[in-house]
Amino acid sequence: MLSISQYREAFSEYLEAKIKVREPENLYEPMVYILSQGGKRLRPVLVLMAAEIFNSDYRKALDAALAIEMFHNFSLVHDDIMDDAPIRRGKETVHEKWDINTGILSGDAMLINAYQLFENYEGEIFKELAQLFTKTAIQVCEGQQYDIDFETRDDVSIEDYLRMIEYKTAVLVGASLQMGAIVAGENKECKEAVYQYGRLLGIAFQLQDDYLDAFGDPETFGKQPGGDIIENKKTFLYLKALETSVKGEANQLAHLYSINPGEHSEKVEAVKNIFESSGAAGLTRREIEKYTHKAFEILEKINISPSKKEPLKKFGQSLMERQV
Amino acid sequence: MLSISQYREAFSEYLEAKIKVREPENLYEPMVYILSQGGKRLRPVLVLMAAEIFNSDYRKALDAALAIEMFHNFSLVHDDIMDDAPIRRGKETVHEKWDINTGILSGDAMLINAYQLFENYEGEIFKELAQLFTKTAIQVCEGQQYDIDFETRDDVSIEDYLRMIEYKTAVLVGASLQMGAIVAGENKECKEAVYQYGRLLGIAFQLQDDYLDAFGDPETFGKQPGGDIIENKKTFLYLKALETSVKGEANQLAHLYSINPGEHSEKVEAVKNIFESSGAAGLTRREIEKYTHKAFEILEKINISPSKKEPLKKFGQSLMERQV
Repeated sequence: MLSISQYREAFSEYLEAKIKVREPENLYEPMVYILSQGGKRLRPVLVLMAAEIFNSDYRKALDAALAIEMFHNFSLVHDDIMDDAPIRRGKETVHEKWDINTGILSGDAMLINAYQLFENYEGEIFKELAQLFTKTAIQVCEGQQYDIDFETRDDVSIEDYLRMIEYKTAVLVGASLQMGAIVAGENKECKEAVYQYGRLLGIAFQLQDDYLDAFGDPETFGKQPGGDIIENKKTFLYLKALETSVKGEANQLAHLYSINPGEHSEKVEAVKNIFESSGAAGLTRREIEKYTHKAFEILEKINISPSKKEPLKKFGQSLMERQV
Repeated sequence: MLSISQYREAFSEYLEAKIKVREPENLYEPMVYILSQGGKRLRPVLVLMAAEIFNSDYRKALDAALAIEMFHNFSLVHDDIMDDAPIRRGKETVHEKWDINTGILSGDAMLINAYQLFENYEGEIFKELAQLFTKTAIQVCEGQQYDIDFETRDDVSIEDYLRMIEYKTAVLVGASLQMGAIVAGENKECKEAVYQYGRLLGIAFQLQDDYLDAFGDPETFGKQPGGDIIENKKTFLYLKALETSVKGEANQLAHLYSINPGEHSEKVEAVKNIFESSGAAGLTRREIEKYTHKAFEILEKINISPSKKEPLKKFGQSLMERQV
């Protein structure tokens, strides 16, 4: 088996050879632009890795991996329009560099192109891949809709929130792993287990991302911490704090989440204090551990040799090891 | 076989039973809104009709027909955003009634849902339907991109224009008919022929639409005539007139297409005069006849009994019989 960076390299080479600007250029240039930016290529690497773990050549899974990356980038382009985001991966977003119409249309073309990549597989494998892809893609759209809805709803439950991050982020991680297993012709049990491993890890990862957004070390987290608090984003931390804090504190938190001060460091500190004092911070850490533990438990049970499991386990560990 | 209005009725019943608002409502309400508006249901009727012509029960083709209608409405929702159109079929467009983000996301969900409908078919039929759908959907995106590009290009050739309308409009008509044939398990020759019949008829129809936009009877055409001229739209009529008119006239036409007068009836008349005097009007009528003739010629050669061909022929004739 290759290392993660070798899979990434192999994938990037394949992408560059396969995704070229063609006519009409204004449709395909933005596609090449966003796909060539790199990024971590987490999802396609998982597709390739899963294929090899289940005894297939990773090269057989390159088209499925490319479809997943194509879909991921479609969703970034459309989400960036909806969020009015000017920058992504340090570069102008597609609708910023071109315009909204270009973002919409080249996004659409990417979604359709993803399906086309599955055509390189036989009838039944094709159907299985396309079916999993469709189910996942619908969930991603639903997750995005829930995320938008939550901005203006004040009755979001923890359960609602967990479903939102599951749909918006985690199912695609599960689907990536399952696609590798499908290409490898694995049995139903393995396909289901590896999907669950990815899904649970995806939820844990997203919860950790929320946690680090408040409590992460600015040096290692990469983003400016406190962003979610500044934007009044109803994350797990916030919802848990509302649930567990005493009444006066809950009211104060709700108030802090209704204001947008120009100078926000005081607000960020006050909110973080409530996150700690209410016990929400600790409970969030516990929830992250719970999902991570569940994920590794499922991985343990998959009926392949321990040496085959090692890379998947390492991948999960490295994902969850980001320092608080 | 049923009549066209009976197919339309059967399709609408199926759609209403199958397409319901579910959670998250903000994603599915716009979908139900646009799909329930009716319209002519041309494409799904063609799917059902083709299935029966090729000896299948039309009910087997209902999901394919719904997928086609779903795709068509996805493209309307996204195109209306791009064209900034406030009204469609006499009602507010989705992005006008809700907002642009809702239009983007529910459009995406419709495109994905279209693929899901094919899952009701077996492995090989599924693959054939999805593959034809993907090919067609990519062409529709490319056609839309060409259409956008042509607005600011001054080197559009007649060939460019014909490809644009073929991709943007005609291939979906061909694909609708072919899907009926696929569901019916027809041979390659029949599937190809019925596709070409739809494609050629679609081009003829679009050329006629351009022609009627200038020369149609306001009473029967339905739209305010002259709209393309007012918007300086480079239609077949315009491109043909540029090609065939003498130099002075061509310059005058190019000038008329560079201005946007508040009172446009004089401009419309002047342009129409050039369309006539240059011979472009007559040549456009001839081109419409050519494509219509080619379509019926192909229909003649399809290896099914004349009585089976009759409904398809009638459908084509009624499409092309709109009065000038």
